[in-house]
Amino acid sequence: MEKSWYNISIIGAGKLAWHLAQALTDAEIKINQVYSRSEASATKLVQRINQGSATIEKDFSFSSSNIFFIALPDDVVPTVLNEFHFPESALLMHTSGTLPISVLESVGKQIGVFYPLQTFSFGKNVDFKKIPICLETSDENCLKQASFLAGLLSNEVHLISSEKRKSLHLAAVFACNFSNRLFALSEDILKKEEIPFHLLSNLVNETVVKAFEIGPEKSQTGPAIRNDIKTIEAHTQLLNGDSEKLEIYKLLTNSIRGIK
Amino acid sequence: MEKSWYNISIIGAGKLAWHLAQALTDAEIKINQVYSRSEASATKLVQRINQGSATIEKDFSFSSSNIFFIALPDDVVPTVLNEFHFPESALLMHTSGTLPISVLESVGKQIGVFYPLQTFSFGKNVDFKKIPICLETSDENCLKQASFLAGLLSNEVHLISSEKRKSLHLAAVFACNFSNRLFALSEDILKKEEIPFHLLSNLVNETVVKAFEIGPEKSQTGPAIRNDIKTIEAHTQLLNGDSEKLEIYKLLTNSIRGIK
Repeated sequence: MEKSWYNISIIGAGKLAWHLAQALTDAEIKINQVYSRSEASATKLVQRINQGSATIEKDFSFSSSNIFFIALPDDVVPTVLNEFHFPESALLMHTSGTLPISVLESVGKQIGVFYPLQTFSFGKNVDFKKIPICLETSDENCLKQASFLAGLLSNEVHLISSEKRKSLHLAAVFACNFSNRLFALSEDILKKEEIPFHLLSNLVNETVVKAFEIGPEKSQTGPAIRNDIKTIEAHTQLLNGDSEKLEIYKLLTNSIRGIK
Repeated sequence: MEKSWYNISIIGAGKLAWHLAQALTDAEIKINQVYSRSEASATKLVQRINQGSATIEKDFSFSSSNIFFIALPDDVVPTVLNEFHFPESALLMHTSGTLPISVLESVGKQIGVFYPLQTFSFGKNVDFKKIPICLETSDENCLKQASFLAGLLSNEVHLISSEKRKSLHLAAVFACNFSNRLFALSEDILKKEEIPFHLLSNLVNETVVKAFEIGPEKSQTGPAIRNDIKTIEAHTQLLNGDSEKLEIYKLLTNSIRGIK
């Protein structure tokens, strides 16, 4: 494979499309076409790419692109794809953590999943080289095309089947979305005492470093793992009247105590 | 105050005592004496400090130290303190996140709390300068002594009352101990699919960065906040038979959906 072989279309102009386009541009890979349900978003994205050399398209039947990224919200993927015809020789890949590869079977024969395992925001740059890319393809030839491209964008490329990707996404919900909810509850507790959440940043960072260095089961600390009933009782007393936090406190405390 | 004024005794030789002794040594503050219920631990700690110039003591009645750190597990603090008499002019400070300042009232008049908000391990260095030190003292003079000392060890010194410290500790349990438990559950989900937990490190780190940059309530992502019922149903299906994870999944998902 060679970098110059790639000619890319991006369908979608949301956060993921935006960061993917940036990473492709940084790697000097040609982006040919862009589509978005919102004309304004498509225009913005095109302006950002290659100084505007990409075009906005609604019909891909005669496209010269050989790779199509489908970077759309999960629930609109099937509907939007129904509107399009793609060149037979092109490789179509969606970028979703939850959709199986099979959602693309009706629109193409060379299909794949290109799932960057990261949370993206507008206006916040990420180092794409550090983002694990989870790949799955319909055949070996597609894999060659997809993995060479992934390797140009990131240092971490993994082959993950649709089945495994489901579990990976679920694990990410526990480790990221749910942890973040705990951060919010923690901030809420501090707000009542006018203590800034920032005070915990060092401790949270150290917790994460340890979890990845020695594994989260071994690195568990706190009153629950110490079986420090007195502190646990004082905490539940403090949460009295806040049924949401109390229920979460009890459930996670019991979950930790169950390790032993 | 001057650095050379300080003459320190440390009661306890656990993880916190160990890191505190290191930080004091690095700041060239004299450690005079060490006590531990375990002779072996005390010997090890003394060997590490000031090339062994500190001594192991069991009687502090005639000690020349002006600051005593009581770095013992919460539940043994009252018992151990009952065994000692301290010089009247000395400032006694415990280092606990949960004990009130009042536990020291029976052993001294100049008392305080010196709580470094961090999780310590043996054999893992921490940058003490970055650790928030939460201070509380019985009077202004003690505060002067404690805060000057804290400022020599850390760049972040905060005055936090016993009442507020309780909430701070509870908030830390949510943000750190409970998050870590979620990391362990996440790793468990991945293990079944033979996916290394390390794959999530970038995503977890980005989650933490965002939570402290824009606040955890605003930075919440995932199926729950998107009200993505289809994905939530697929996840609960996947967790079918694992009642512990399923219960936590449902509770935290509902907690996030309640934000709206």
